[in-house]
Amino acid sequence: MIFMKNTVNMGLIGFGTIGSGVVETLNMNLPLIEDKVKKTVKLKKVVDLDIVTDRGVQVNPKVLSTDVNDVLEDPEIDIVIELIGGYQPALNFILKAIENGKHVVTANKALLAKHWEEIMDAARKNEVRVCFEASVGGGIPLLEPLNDSLAANQIESIYGIINGTANYILTKMSEEGRPFEEVLKKAQELGYAEQDPTFDVEGYDTAQKLIILTILGFGVYLKQEKFHVEGISRITPDDIQFASKEMDCVIKLLAISQLVDGELEVRVHPTLVPEEHLLAAVKGVFNGVYMVGDVVGPVLMYGRGAGMLPTASAVVSDCMDIIEYPKKPLLYGPQKPPVQNIKRMDAVESRYYLRITAIDQPGVLHAISGILSDLNISLESVNQPKRDEGQEVPIFMVTHYAKERDMIRALEKIKLFKFVTQDTVFIRLL
Amino acid sequence: MIFMKNTVNMGLIGFGTIGSGVVETLNMNLPLIEDKVKKTVKLKKVVDLDIVTDRGVQVNPKVLSTDVNDVLEDPEIDIVIELIGGYQPALNFILKAIENGKHVVTANKALLAKHWEEIMDAARKNEVRVCFEASVGGGIPLLEPLNDSLAANQIESIYGIINGTANYILTKMSEEGRPFEEVLKKAQELGYAEQDPTFDVEGYDTAQKLIILTILGFGVYLKQEKFHVEGISRITPDDIQFASKEMDCVIKLLAISQLVDGELEVRVHPTLVPEEHLLAAVKGVFNGVYMVGDVVGPVLMYGRGAGMLPTASAVVSDCMDIIEYPKKPLLYGPQKPPVQNIKRMDAVESRYYLRITAIDQPGVLHAISGILSDLNISLESVNQPKRDEGQEVPIFMVTHYAKERDMIRALEKIKLFKFVTQDTVFIRLL
Repeated sequence: MIFMKNTVNMGLIGFGTIGSGVVETLNMNLPLIEDKVKKTVKLKKVVDLDIVTDRGVQVNPKVLSTDVNDVLEDPEIDIVIELIGGYQPALNFILKAIENGKHVVTANKALLAKHWEEIMDAARKNEVRVCFEASVGGGIPLLEPLNDSLAANQIESIYGIINGTANYILTKMSEEGRPFEEVLKKAQELGYAEQDPTFDVEGYDTAQKLIILTILGFGVYLKQEKFHVEGISRITPDDIQFASKEMDCVIKLLAISQLVDGELEVRVHPTLVPEEHLLAAVKGVFNGVYMVGDVVGPVLMYGRGAGMLPTASAVVSDCMDIIEYPKKPLLYGPQKPPVQNIKRMDAVESRYYLRITAIDQPGVLHAISGILSDLNISLESVNQPKRDEGQEVPIFMVTHYAKERDMIRALEKIKLFKFVTQDTVFIRLL
Repeated sequence: MIFMKNTVNMGLIGFGTIGSGVVETLNMNLPLIEDKVKKTVKLKKVVDLDIVTDRGVQVNPKVLSTDVNDVLEDPEIDIVIELIGGYQPALNFILKAIENGKHVVTANKALLAKHWEEIMDAARKNEVRVCFEASVGGGIPLLEPLNDSLAANQIESIYGIINGTANYILTKMSEEGRPFEEVLKKAQELGYAEQDPTFDVEGYDTAQKLIILTILGFGVYLKQEKFHVEGISRITPDDIQFASKEMDCVIKLLAISQLVDGELEVRVHPTLVPEEHLLAAVKGVFNGVYMVGDVVGPVLMYGRGAGMLPTASAVVSDCMDIIEYPKKPLLYGPQKPPVQNIKRMDAVESRYYLRITAIDQPGVLHAISGILSDLNISLESVNQPKRDEGQEVPIFMVTHYAKERDMIRALEKIKLFKFVTQDTVFIRLL
């Protein structure tokens, strides 16, 4: 019974980047933290396979351990902080902690996205809290506002820039006009991108976070394979330049969850965002989530979506929330979702930007526009800035609203033309 | 004991704009609200002196009353929503509600700013909650994130655009190049400004909200007369144009509360904000608050800071928070402030923009720069775009960092020159 005790003991599993951030946050602000929660707060154990490497943060060697049971089985530990990431053994550790009556704080979006029901059912049964503000948007207040401060709202839409790596790459491509591969390499050198960047640049990380946002916003739990996920690796400087010069837009990797005509649309893909939209001002490694509630209208939350200290800010604040309200009911999002139907991606309607790469020869535009018009896709603009007869040139098109299924069909047909030499790049508009 | 009951009764005092918004929010979202809090939620009484005028929202006539005791003295009412504004009788109503063991939700920033201690002491004594998310930034999640999601941080600075009227006027002046008076008149016609706009344009509303932010961020309660408050009525299109063209800045009315050299600076004044700063993108009636925590780094919260529904979103969400956690301890901000000293305004250091109006004649620049240099104020740039010998011309100057006290002294001396024909406008830089 945490609220009866004068000392609260926490156990940390995972002494990596964020784990070190948690240790450092306590080093920095323990008096402030204890002043706010009116208890003595102790980090009793820090468990990792490697307790030798210097993390650059001051830590009492006595709290270090390689045995996870020093946390999971210690009856004095009230709160377990899981920061090892991934599915296993993280899942087992969390379930064990819950079973032993311990509250859990985690930043593990992959695990929550995949095992949401199992973890929450266990927490409900054992009457403990599971907090995960750090799992989306790092230290940005996001899930708590969505759950509490905006509670009176039916959320209508969520648009999030929630992967700092992808946003950094797109921002640099835009500012410096350099291609994806080059900027990625630089990002890897600077530590902003992993050696295998797939997870970030292909949208999977964004998708896991979107699953969590969709639960909180709409009460709907969707697995990742149930919605469209698309990354940014196809985007070229040509696309970015055309978007800026001709459309006053920037390209952002967006997580989208919104109610449209009584259905929920959930998708992750690069999106053309008007320059005057506040999301366009979310640059570099920063994250921003724009939400619209039916009562409050639009709100935006912005900040550092990753990193040792920003993420630790959310982890430690979650621990404080548990200390203050250990009996807060475990209820995330509306329990009666506003809609039952998830819109199929091919039924989504959007405006599209197309970059078609074709041999410059007479009749090309006529042939392509014929395909589009046969599928009832009408064009807002067509641009072929370069003329180079017999050579490859880019053709830029912007459509009015069209159904995804018609666009896919059109692209399949366009691909068959001999004069079309590369896959057509298409980007949806916000 | 609200948490034991299956039905929660709320009583609303004040059926004005926001009160109507609360009624409308319940009309819109009652099933969602009841689903989330797992209780039956009833607006049992709506009290106003005028219960005849049609507010344009559907309301059961049986709940209307002109007798405030129908709310304050009804033992069935658990939560009192105070939305009449102003000091009295709002203060007495709130104290009576608290004394009678009722939780209170209010949007009344003026009252909180002036009577904070009295209200909170009463609430503590009677073990009820007082919630006021709506008092700053309308529906934007702001106080709850500051209090909870960022709890692990020592807040280092808060910069807020928290008055929609002033921001609307500055935005329109900037977009349309029109003078203050003209834009104000238009804003009054559109209902964005009061007939007596003093409160909004002279910074007093911003100051009251800053008092609340300063309590939550720093645990310091300062009365309004203890800090510098300055409005936007002196700003001209010339200032805005120079800021944009020569300095890549916009002018915003900022609420500032920040730790500097072991002291707390609290002030409200027009401020030059670099165009690339996210606060520069907070336009029109929107509000935005930029905060820096020592762990999380910078975060920004953005949305509609006023209006019937956005403000009601915060009021009703506060009610839901009380229903879910009626025993949440009444603790706002760190109880041990990080610093004891409030910096005197004349000790604040800033860079300054100056617009001096003077007769164009030889020696003017030399005389003015002499005054500044005598006071150790060094100039970054001097611009006199118009030449018109013998006539009034504006001279623009931007200084390096200087102390407010030296700047005030310089301005007093500059004023004495015969060739200086108007008061010098000076604006601090962020």
